[in-house]
Parts: sequence; C-alpha cells; structure tokens
Amino acid sequence: MSKAKIRMAMVGGGEGAFIGAIHRIAARLDGMIELVAGAFSSDANKCKATGELLGLDSSRCYDSYQSLFSAEAKLPTDERIDFVAIVTPNHLHFPVAKMALEHGIHVLSDKPATLTLAEAKQLQAIIAKQQVLYGLTHTYTGYPMIKEAKHRVKASELGTIRKVIVEYTQGWLSHSEDEGSKQASWRLDTSKSGISCCMGDIGVHAANLAEYVAGLEITELCADLNHVVDGRSLDDDGTVLLRFNNGCKGVLLASQIAIGDENNLRLRIYGDKASLEWSQLEPNSLWLRGHNQPSILLRAGVGELHPDTQNALRAPAGHPEGYLEAFANIYRNFAAQIHAFKQGDHVTNSSFDVPGINEAMRGMAFIEHVVASSKQDIKWQKLQVG
Amino acid sequence: MSKAKIRMAMVGGGEGAFIGAIHRIAARLDGMIELVAGAFSSDANKCKATGELLGLDSSRCYDSYQSLFSAEAKLPTDERIDFVAIVTPNHLHFPVAKMALEHGIHVLSDKPATLTLAEAKQLQAIIAKQQVLYGLTHTYTGYPMIKEAKHRVKASELGTIRKVIVEYTQGWLSHSEDEGSKQASWRLDTSKSGISCCMGDIGVHAANLAEYVAGLEITELCADLNHVVDGRSLDDDGTVLLRFNNGCKGVLLASQIAIGDENNLRLRIYGDKASLEWSQLEPNSLWLRGHNQPSILLRAGVGELHPDTQNALRAPAGHPEGYLEAFANIYRNFAAQIHAFKQGDHVTNSSFDVPGINEAMRGMAFIEHVVASSKQDIKWQKLQVG
Amino acid sequence: MSKAKIRMAMVGGGEGAFIGAIHRIAARLDGMIELVAGAFSSDANKCKATGELLGLDSSRCYDSYQSLFSAEAKLPTDERIDFVAIVTPNHLHFPVAKMALEHGIHVLSDKPATLTLAEAKQLQAIIAKQQVLYGLTHTYTGYPMIKEAKHRVKASELGTIRKVIVEYTQGWLSHSEDEGSKQASWRLDTSKSGISCCMGDIGVHAANLAEYVAGLEITELCADLNHVVDGRSLDDDGTVLLRFNNGCKGVLLASQIAIGDENNLRLRIYGDKASLEWSQLEPNSLWLRGHNQPSILLRAGVGELHPDTQNALRAPAGHPEGYLEAFANIYRNFAAQIHAFKQGDHVTNSSFDVPGINEAMRGMAFIEHVVASSKQDIKWQKLQVG
Amino acid sequence: MSKAKIRMAMVGGGEGAFIGAIHRIAARLDGMIELVAGAFSSDANKCKATGELLGLDSSRCYDSYQSLFSAEAKLPTDERIDFVAIVTPNHLHFPVAKMALEHGIHVLSDKPATLTLAEAKQLQAIIAKQQVLYGLTHTYTGYPMIKEAKHRVKASELGTIRKVIVEYTQGWLSHSEDEGSKQASWRLDTSKSGISCCMGDIGVHAANLAEYVAGLEITELCADLNHVVDGRSLDDDGTVLLRFNNGCKGVLLASQIAIGDENNLRLRIYGDKASLEWSQLEPNSLWLRGHNQPSILLRAGVGELHPDTQNALRAPAGHPEGYLEAFANIYRNFAAQIHAFKQGDHVTNSSFDVPGINEAMRGMAFIEHVVASSKQDIKWQKLQVG
Repeated sequence: MSKAKIRMAMVGGGEGAFIGAIHRIAARLDGMIELVAGAFSSDANKCKATGELLGLDSSRCYDSYQSLFSAEAKLPTDERIDFVAIVTPNHLHFPVAKMALEHGIHVLSDKPATLTLAEAKQLQAIIAKQQVLYGLTHTYTGYPMIKEAKHRVKASELGTIRKVIVEYTQGWLSHSEDEGSKQASWRLDTSKSGISCCMGDIGVHAANLAEYVAGLEITELCADLNHVVDGRSLDDDGTVLLRFNNGCKGVLLASQIAIGDENNLRLRIYGDKASLEWSQLEPNSLWLRGHNQPSILLRAGVGELHPDTQNALRAPAGHPEGYLEAFANIYRNFAAQIHAFKQGDHVTNSSFDVPGINEAMRGMAFIEHVVASSKQDIKWQKLQVG
Repeated sequence: MSKAKIRMAMVGGGEGAFIGAIHRIAARLDGMIELVAGAFSSDANKCKATGELLGLDSSRCYDSYQSLFSAEAKLPTDERIDFVAIVTPNHLHFPVAKMALEHGIHVLSDKPATLTLAEAKQLQAIIAKQQVLYGLTHTYTGYPMIKEAKHRVKASELGTIRKVIVEYTQGWLSHSEDEGSKQASWRLDTSKSGISCCMGDIGVHAANLAEYVAGLEITELCADLNHVVDGRSLDDDGTVLLRFNNGCKGVLLASQIAIGDENNLRLRIYGDKASLEWSQLEPNSLWLRGHNQPSILLRAGVGELHPDTQNALRAPAGHPEGYLEAFANIYRNFAAQIHAFKQGDHVTNSSFDVPGINEAMRGMAFIEHVVASSKQDIKWQKLQVG
Repeated sequence: MSKAKIRMAMVGGGEGAFIGAIHRIAARLDGMIELVAGAFSSDANKCKATGELLGLDSSRCYDSYQSLFSAEAKLPTDERIDFVAIVTPNHLHFPVAKMALEHGIHVLSDKPATLTLAEAKQLQAIIAKQQVLYGLTHTYTGYPMIKEAKHRVKASELGTIRKVIVEYTQGWLSHSEDEGSKQASWRLDTSKSGISCCMGDIGVHAANLAEYVAGLEITELCADLNHVVDGRSLDDDGTVLLRFNNGCKGVLLASQIAIGDENNLRLRIYGDKASLEWSQLEPNSLWLRGHNQPSILLRAGVGELHPDTQNALRAPAGHPEGYLEAFANIYRNFAAQIHAFKQGDHVTNSSFDVPGINEAMRGMAFIEHVVASSKQDIKWQKLQVG
Repeated sequence: MSKAKIRMAMVGGGEGAFIGAIHRIAARLDGMIELVAGAFSSDANKCKATGELLGLDSSRCYDSYQSLFSAEAKLPTDERIDFVAIVTPNHLHFPVAKMALEHGIHVLSDKPATLTLAEAKQLQAIIAKQQVLYGLTHTYTGYPMIKEAKHRVKASELGTIRKVIVEYTQGWLSHSEDEGSKQASWRLDTSKSGISCCMGDIGVHAANLAEYVAGLEITELCADLNHVVDGRSLDDDGTVLLRFNNGCKGVLLASQIAIGDENNLRLRIYGDKASLEWSQLEPNSLWLRGHNQPSILLRAGVGELHPDTQNALRAPAGHPEGYLEAFANIYRNFAAQIHAFKQGDHVTNSSFDVPGINEAMRGMAFIEHVVASSKQDIKWQKLQVG
C-alpha cells in the first residue's frame, strides 16, 4: 500500500542560509517527505518570498515559529505538519524545539541541539513527557561507509579498540574578513552561537562520529582551545585528548583556520586486531588494515556489506554518492520513524537510526566540558552528562 | 513569482530496474519536477504497484506507453504531463520517444537514443516538425567539474588539443553468470540492446564526454571490439582509435569485463599548453597540468570556477557531490528549458545545457561505425552522421 | 667467504648524460660492483674529467670503447673488467656490445639493444658462440611489486588473462624547444635513435613490462604513431592495439607530448578471476581486485610476499623505495650472474633474473613492427622475431 | 681534481640489525664514502663475518669500539678512518660517540643521540673542545620535498605559522609477540632504549621534522603517553600538545600500536597565507594550499624548486626516489662537510646541512620533558634545553 508523504515545516533557512537549502534537498531526495509550511525568516516578506519560491501555499508561510506552531496545531490531523526541521542559528534551536515538542510536533534539529547542556536536558524531559520524536542532524552518521565501519567494529573485526583519532579541519574562517558572510558572523557571536565556535560547530560532529563508529563514550578529556585570529571571542581551533569508557585513549583535532582545508573530517580507529580509516573527502571508501597484512579497501556497493550500509546506498558501485545522500539518509530514516509512530510502532531496525536526544545531550556536555577544560591548568577532566 | 512544478511521466522503471529509481531521485532533487504519471512496466499489475509506491494517482498509472500518451494528451493543459522520461531497455527508446514527440510531449530519454542511426534521424525530423524539446541523459556531462573542464578548454587554457584519452571500464559483466540480472540480460540481447553491448552502453558515454569537454568531433575511427566471455553475440570489450576534426588523435577504451573495476570513467586531454584529467571515482577533482610546472588541483566549490560549474553545485567545498547530483543537473536543466519553452522562450545560457538530438545522432553514428570498423581489415573509417 | 667485487667499465655517461649517473648509482648501491674503467665520452678530455671525478685510475680512462676493450683484454684476469655497462645513445649500443662480447666481456646494455632487429640477432649469435652474459636494463622489471605482480599472475591468482592495458606517458618532449637538451636531441635524430623516438624510448619499455608480468608474448599488433610536434621526423606519440599468444587483447599507449605527465608508466591486467594494477608513480603499491569483492592493496614489505619480491626490497614497509633501487636490482642481479659464471655456474633462481638477449630481440621486433604497422592501411600485422 | 673517498667505520650493524644495512647503502650510494673498518658486533666472530661479507680488510674488523678507535688513531692520517657511523642500540650511542670524538674522529650517530640530555650536553662540550664534526641521522630531513617545504616556509609563502600537526604512526609493535625481534626487544628495554620507546624512537623524529620545516622551536608541551600493550614498561603510544616559540600551537601524534600503519610520518603546517602537507608514504609530493584557491601539487623534479631541493634529487621527475636516497643525502652532506673540514673550511651552503649536536640536545630534551609531562597532572610544561 502506498504511504502518504510525511508533512514537514521548516524554521529558518531563508535566503543566504546555505544549510536550509541542503536540508530541503535532503528532505526531497527520497520522495517520502513534503515541505508544506515554513517560518523561514524573522522578516515576514523574506519568509513569504522563500515560501513562494518553494511552491508553498502562502497561508502556511508564517512570520514566526510561534504562529507556525499554533496555527498548524489547529489544522486537521491529516493536514497539519508531522514534524519541523530547525535550521536556524544555534540560539533558536532550543526555543523552537521546545515549543514544537510541547505542541506534539516531532522535531528534526540541526546541531548543536541547544546553547547549553541544561537546555538539552529540558528537551529530554519534554520529549519523555510528550512522547514525540526528536532527531538531530549529525549528518556524517548517514554515510553508508560509516554504517559499515560501525558494524565492522560491532562485529569485533577490529578487536578491542585501543586508539581513536578523529579530525575535522576547515580553512574557511582563516581570516577575519571571512566573517562577513552570514554563516560566519553568527557562528562567532556568543549570543547566537553559544560558548564555542569551532568545537560547537565541527568539534561536536567529530566527537559524535567517533562515539558512533567506535561504539564507545568519551569519559574524560583534556582540551586546548585557541583563538587564532585576532579579536575573536570564541575558539577557532583546538585539540582535545580523550579517554573512552573502555579505557582507551583518543585525540580530536578541529580547526577552522586550517587554511586550504575543505571539510576534512577523518576518522581512524585502531583495535588490537585491525584498524579502520575513513575520510569525508572520499566517503565511499573504507580502509581496513590488519597486522602485517595487505590493506583491504571496502567500497560502497562492492561485495558483501552490512544491510544497514546497503540500505543507505542508492546507486551502484563506482557512481559516487556524497554529502547530500548522507543527509537524505537522516531525513529518510526520520520519516520512517514517523510512519512507524503513526501506527503506534517503533523503528527498531538499526538501518533507520537517527541521532536523538541522547546524542544532543552528549554533544552539549562535550562542548561545555571542552571549554571548561581549556581554561584550567589540570590536565584531565571528567565528562559528565547526567 | 513561484514557478509551478513541471509534470513528468515515466515509461519503464518498474521494480528491479535500477536506472528508473535513479532517474526519479534526479527528477526530485531540486523540487522543480513532479512525477504524475507512468507506464512503468508492460505488466499492468506491476505498473500499478510501482505507481502506488510512488504515490501516483492510480488513474495515471497506465498499462502501456500508448495509452499513457493518448490519455494524457486529452487532459487539460495545466494538468497533463509536460514531458516523459524514457528509462526502458534500448529497443523501446525510439517508439516511445516517437509517439511522445508526435503528441507534442517533450522527451528526456536514456541513452542510446535509438537502436539505429536511421531511427535517430527520424526523431530529429519529428522534433524539427513538432517543435518540442528532446533531451538525452548523457549523465556525466552533468558533473560540475566536467563543466569546468569544458570551459577551461574553451578558454584555451590547454592551448591546441593534441591528444584525448577516454576510458570507461567496468567489471560487472566479467562472467556469464552475471547475465542473470535483469540489467544484464537485455543488454546482451540484440533484439533489446541493439548491435552493441559494451560500446552501446558505455563506449557511447565515453565518446560523448570526450567530445563535450574537448569541444571537438570524432571524424574517423579504427575499432577493435571483443566478445571476451564465451557465447556472447555482442561485444563486452573494445578499443577505438580516434581522429578528431582538428586533426588530433585519441583513444577510447571501454570494457565490461575489466574485473574489479567499478565505473571507471576517466578523461585525459592534452593540449600544447596544458593537460587536464578527470575521473568519475573522484568527480569533485579536476587536474590541470602545465609544462614542467606544479600540478593544479581544482576542487568543486574552491576558488574561482566558471559560473556553469557553480550553477551545477549545491553543497560547499569538501562536502562531496556525486552521480545523483550530476543526474539531477540534467533534469533540472531540462525543467528549466521546459519553463522557458512554456513562455515561448529558449534557454541560451550554457549553464542549463542538456544533451539533445544532435548528441543522440552522433552517439548512434558512433555505435554503428565502431561495430562496422571492428569487422573490417582496413584501419581507418570515416565517421559520418549526416 | 667474502666475494670480490665485480669490476665494471662504462661506455658513455659523460657529463650532461643523466642516464650514466643513474647507472653508476645503481651499480654502487649494493656494494657488489666496482667501476674501474670507462670510455665516457668521445672527447678524450671530457672522458678523463669524468673518470677523475669518479676516482678512476687515469690509465683506465680510455678515449674510445675500442681502446678500452683491447687494453682491458690484455690485463690479468683478476684485474681486467668483468663487464661493460653501455649507456651511450642508441646507435652505439650495437657496435659497443658487439666488440665487448667478441672480447669475452659481459655486457649490460641500456635499451633498445640495437638500431635494428637484424643487429640484435647478430648479438644473439655472438653471445651463443662466445658464451658470455648479456643483460638489458629494462629497469621497470626490477621493481619489487612488479616481481610480486608477475608471480601472482604465474600462480593463477588472476585466472586466464583477458586484457592487458599498459601506458607510458611523458610530457617532456611537448615542445620543439625542449629538444635543445642533450637527451632530447639525439632521441629525435634517426641516425642516433633509430626508426622511432617514442616507441623506441618508452613504448618498448611498456611492451616489455606487459610481457614480463603477464607471462605472455605479443603476437600481433595494430599501430598508430603520430608526429605531433611540427617538424619531427620521428614519432612522439602513439597507440598500439595488441594481441597476445593466449588470444587475449591489449592496448599500449605511449606519448612524449602528454604535457604535464612525468613518467606515468602504468600497467593493468585483467583475468577471469581478478585484476591487478601498478603504477610507477606509486611503485610500492600493487592493487589486486576480484569480482565484486573488496580491493586488496599489497604493499612493499607488508605481509606475505613472494621471495623474489622480498629479495628485491631493502627497507622496511613504509620507507618507500623507488627507481634507483629498481635499477640497482638489475645491476645486483647481473653481478650475481657474473659471480655464478665465474664459478662455471648459472643462476637459475628467478630472484636474480635480468632481461637478456631474448628481450632485446623482442624489443627490436616490437619497434620495427610498430613503425611498419603504422604506415600501412591494414589493421593487424603479425609480430615475428625469428 | 678528483676527491679522495671519505673513510668510514661502523659501530654496530651486524646481522639482524636492519638499520646497519640501511646506513651502509646510504653511505655507498653517491660514491663519496668507503667503509674501511668496523666493530659490527660485540661477538668477535660475528663481527669478522660481517666485515668479510662487506669486503673489509680483516685487520680492520675490531672486536670492540674501544679497540677500533685506539687502533685507527694509530694509523697514518691518509689511511685511518675519517668518521664513524654509530648504529648500535641507543645506550651505546653516547659512549661510542664520546670516545670517537675524544680521538678526534668525526661522528655520524643514529638517533636519539644519547640516553639522557645530560649526556648530550657532555657530547656538546667535547665537540666544542675537540673541534670535530658531529651529525645525527634525522633521516627525514634528507627528503628533497622536505627541503622544499622548509624553504617555502622560510620564503614566507605560508605567512605566519599558526598551527603544526605532525604524526608518526606505526603498527609494528601492536602485539607483545612482536617483541621477539631483535629490533623490538631492545627498544622496549629501558637499559638499552632509555626512558621512552615510542617517543624516543619515532616521536623525536616527528618533533625534529616539525621544527626543521617550520623553522620554529617547541617551547612548551603537554604530553599523554600510553602503555597500550600489557606488561610494557615503556610507552608505545602518545600524543603531545605543543607550543612553539612564535606562540603558535601544534600537535604531535606518535604510535607504535597503530595496527596496519606502516611508517606514516605526515606533516601539516598552516600559516595565515597558505598551508603545506607532506607524507612519507608519497615523499615526492608536497601540497601547497592557499585560501579558497586551487591546490598546488609540487613534485620532485618538476618546475622551479629551491636549489637545496634540486641538490637532494638524483633522478628525473616521475622516477620516484625514497627513503634510501633521503638517508644517502645525510651521508653525502656529512662527507661534504668532512671534505671541507679537511681543507680547514666550513660548509655554509644549506644544501649540505646535516642535523647536529643542537638537534641532538633538543631531541633529548624533548624526550625527557615528554616523559615528565605525561606523569604530571598540570597541563603545560616548559621545554628547556639549556
């Protein structure tokens, strides 16, 4: 039987905001979701213009997220939005998510989930009470070969994990003049971005990816954050030494002043039997290396891969898929969860996983502890979420 | 002002046909096209099932392309389909395109356009008469860095072109047992595939890509086709020596028995000032190399790129885009052409180019001449389209 | 027991001749060979200067190869040279080799062995009569991972060979002004270079490498040679279609006008079970790929490799070895053969193989047939050595 | 005028010691050095056997370094050794170097220079008094593209250095059973190796390389060393946060339990104008990347390179050179310095630089401070040499 499309609203994502357009492509790609409403901008005219461009009914282009949620809540069940995608600057993630959840609307939020760990805990409480779905777009977990990596670790192909190295280096904030862009300016503004720029924007992705694939949790850290470009109040570079819950160590490198680097997200995990390596710049490849043995290059679509990996792929081997498809996997999986929810069901199949409130809280805890650690002279600090 | 979505029908692309799903994603990705009708399978039940899965109105799931076109033609202008995407096995490309064009419906066809050059010429005549749009999914021309390559050549950065090497090697038809799959079986069946398997399926893509980027036309060739796997009546491997209309030489290698290769499409063009190299396995990179100078690596999204390249990109540098986005560029461009057409206009901006009937005829001429050349003892044969 | 060093003379290799210096490094690297005599230049002063720089006894710096051989032949057995390395322009390879062999001096010659196949056959006859050793520096066969490739093929890991693609592209002769250099000028001069530039200089290396690794012989070919740069009487680019003695096909691409390319020697062999790929630009890697299976990357020094591969390696994995080491392997092996010869023995261990008179004749036959084929309108021509 | 060969002795490097053979190849490669004496092993028979294999006069195969130095010192000036290469386990570096220097014999020592910083300072004092030459085989500084990198930094092509990331990861000590080998066992034995295994063996190389190329000095560090494999008393893995004398930060990663890694030495330096990247696995490449600009790939032998880079190269572009050539550059440069010394001169040309006693002391200070820092709870520790 045909499945009706899941109805989505978007808050944020007006013109000039690159991430809104990306979210919309991701939502569209598999034909399971329909964008029906939006509060794209705090400027009502801009909002209407965006809605029109997207072919929305003008009555569902709202001038604020508040009016969006109250108006949509009054529509008939089979008409009103199923979920909202939040793609605003960071400081609005929390209030928008909170209000949506309180109206019983599922939330798919960009990261970081909130400005503080305390806010994330508030969301957790509301979610628990309202029994609604909450997803967080830690996009990189949507890559097929990341799924494969996770399952290879889970199947003990690496043995006991001994070391994790994760890097996310970019060069786009190398100069103060780069701050003119809309994306740059709010990220470096504490009131909109929170207490960290580099770690809050990309360090948290790296931490999430490492935990996701390794199946481990960071329990202690030692951070060294830097404000490389003169006059910045927030970090634009940093290194974090890590200790995981199985006792192994790790290193996280993040930088936005790594001039000439694109989005160099790279993960290496070493076990006592083998290691793996993955890089976003070649996302369809996954290296497996044993001890004094030929290296194995796993490729998207080639040979026996985990069903979750297969499920995350759309094209045959050698027809590369990328970032938008990884993003679309998050959306597709969230839509699948909503479908199940509507039938009073839960998705338990790991193929349709979506990062959620747990990852949201861990991410906020990571950011807060990293910033705190960087300010103190003592080496190690415990990472506590609860 | 908001643009209404372009309405699309699909012929072919029922379950098990990978390329149909790919076309649908490509059509969906930019939100400009809506799939509203289909004749997905010659089996009426299968067709309905596919339509239902895709959320189509069941009244527009037709049991044949003939009934599709006659029924749709009777619908009001603002309701009936704007174009049909043809994703059937090769032998149906021509009759479906012909009937669509005769009904004044624009056509976006998978390649090769027809079974013979004569058929392609028939299409050309109908197109000229009916004044409708015809596009051919030579997908690889949709890659952003291919656009960049084309424009670098056009801007004389390579100087006079002296040599073109293009390869497309795959391993998926390495064994006769691989022929069991739906995709394999018809490709090796002359009645459905035409007079060539390897050259008709991928050689023609390579030839098209070389001509597109080099801005040259193949004028002579010397082909050596092989039937490597026992019992095949069609070629599964081959090499073609090329001569272009500027007098330079080239080589085209294509194989479906290149065991272990994925979809290794790779283009190298050497001029008297510089050379370029592009490979589908790393589609966001384009190498430029001068004489005894450091190599230049152009990357999607980095630095000054041609407007057509920028226009073909959706994500920032380092967030890789791939095959589906290249495919979506063809669809988006075709939709843009239809929009213009509806306003009595033509798209002249090269950013929105789509391979058309000229490429269709050249492709069929290539296939016919390659097969003929391979059978003769004389080295060179002229490639004539007209 | 300690082995006395093998005594070597060099003919050619005065200042400005890069290949002479390379040969000397190769000879020195393993400490088995001592350069004791030379006729480095036809200019007696230059010859002396080179000898002095190299620390030779001035009495053994000869003003011609003729005087070298006659003088050395008169020295006591334990003093006179064991072998001569010939590193002159092509036209001297034959007369120097001939005279050395006739004096009972072993010969290690640069390639191509002679100017004509007829000359190579003369050498063969002299060798047979004189019972001396003859080696040809087809250097690339000295790379460890080429040894590994050869043995993987021999052990049937690829199954039946179906296709061979070998390329050697360079850009150094892209412009006529590049011809000023000493290396360029004689290569483009028929009287010194022979009937081919590109095929005689690098095409013959590619053909040799393909035959060496595949364990096959080229039996037919169809060549298309080009004189790309105006005014050249010899080829600077070309493609050759190949047929091997097991019935499989191949392609050889060679170019000296591939602007921006360094010494891109690359070999791909496809069997019915697996394929291999090797490139001189990453010589310590060898790819093995099965059918729809993860790719295997064999690396020099890692894991179980053939004893011949191990024997050709000097440093541990990850400490890259290169061209000079490959060259040194040819010299070391030739020295080992001379040691055995001195004891009335033969080296049968494949670890110490050196390309010889058979490869010399096959190379000359290749060059002659390629040039002939390129001039005729008939596609295929038989390659006959005998 | 011809230059007489420099006479060398070797201490250490008997059978089973891989590094001795490497040093000998490096010494031989350019034909400037002759090995004439040795104390290869503490076992007199083994020593003789090695000497014989190497063609040494048996009278100059000594049963101890003590007898070597006293005997050689008594030989006539034009016969006795010019320098000694020390290739023993670490604990002997100091006593051997000390005795050689006191006998007026130049020393080329493997690293680390000594077991402690105090010993290195003693050597410094002796060198100052004796006026002899001392070199340290920080081999990686011998790579041509490392020279190029250094000079690009010096010429301000990167602008002000902001961040340095250097890694050296290996997998060869992943398992306790790997310790059986001769190379492994002494490295993990404090009495022979010193206070650190991983940092003393490879971390110190990475630190040296970073300082060499960046032209900076480490002034503070925060180390986290690990004993990953059970039962090891010395570190086999670690990370060090760095602060340099220009105020910029860095990270050094070193591991010997990075299973599957070969000798992954990799350096990235980011300035405010551009960045560079180099990896030992592709040593002939050097990446330069500006801000939002195409990447530049500098290749050994291609285009305009610094004279020091050219001087460090032997083969033309595309004929890869590697580790042995880098090593040979250290030897060749040391030989050039000895030649100059003999003529009462100094080498001031940076083309012939050799790491010396300053690098020796900095290396020992690095090791001592890293081990100390790892044991303390305070984050940052000053690195003091003087």
